[in-house]
Amino acid sequence: MGEGVEWAVHCCLTLGWLGDDQPVSTARLAAGYELPPAYLNKQLQALVRAGILTSTAGARGGFRLGRPLDKITLLDVVTAIEGPDEAFQCTEIRQRGSGAESPARSFVAPCAVSTAMRKAELAYRRALAAQTLAEVKVAAERHVPRLEDSVRRWYGRG
Amino acid sequence: MGEGVEWAVHCCLTLGWLGDDQPVSTARLAAGYELPPAYLNKQLQALVRAGILTSTAGARGGFRLGRPLDKITLLDVVTAIEGPDEAFQCTEIRQRGSGAESPARSFVAPCAVSTAMRKAELAYRRALAAQTLAEVKVAAERHVPRLEDSVRRWYGRG
Repeated sequence: MGEGVEWAVHCCLTLGWLGDDQPVSTARLAAGYELPPAYLNKQLQALVRAGILTSTAGARGGFRLGRPLDKITLLDVVTAIEGPDEAFQCTEIRQRGSGAESPARSFVAPCAVSTAMRKAELAYRRALAAQTLAEVKVAAERHVPRLEDSVRRWYGRG
Repeated sequence: MGEGVEWAVHCCLTLGWLGDDQPVSTARLAAGYELPPAYLNKQLQALVRAGILTSTAGARGGFRLGRPLDKITLLDVVTAIEGPDEAFQCTEIRQRGSGAESPARSFVAPCAVSTAMRKAELAYRRALAAQTLAEVKVAAERHVPRLEDSVRRWYGRG
């Protein structure tokens, strides 16, 4: 997993703290976390494609949340940034070499190795889907006094 | 995740079917799944380092299971092949840019984003740890008639 997920979740939280009154540019979001703007912009565009953010063009354009943080799960963000593919990719090696002698009907059911790995990935995805960004925001605020005020001030939203 | 996990789990199952009477060479295991021997050997050496396999040098040398399949979990194999690091790596971007104004004590507790992601990875690891290779072997045998006989015959173990 690349840094994209970390960046994307933090940017969504920031947009949550700023509210949706005016869009925030890539340059500002990048400066807000000292990230490379061009690469961050790729992640933000992926969030737009997934409907997590909306973007406005123009000199005063930028990004807003596409829906409230309690309607965005960690799975939404991970899928938007990393893609929908599972980490474990079965290449059906069971059918090769020594397996080539087994009758074709042996391979109708999914490979037991793949099934076992997918079971674990399903547990991962379920745990991601069970957590909304609203909950992550509350957890972040618990440890940093006046975090929302501090972010709003930094972005000039007083 | 690379193909290494798929290869490693299948090779362990094969060694389980063959029993531990004589070691199996990299060349034979590679041929048994039509895999590139040099790259497969790297995965097998990683399993040896993790204690999942043992290796014997020499012309008649090769690999045996280091312990029974019911004492090897999917997590053991994934950790041996992919390493112990979690997929999500927190780089503490919360402390940069807008975060730099917060007092140092704000960052004593782990980042909420990291905590949330780790919760999901823990669910993944728990699900991997809950499945032994003995269970995967039983599931594989359920769909392929006389799988053990077929593998033993291919490896000349009649």
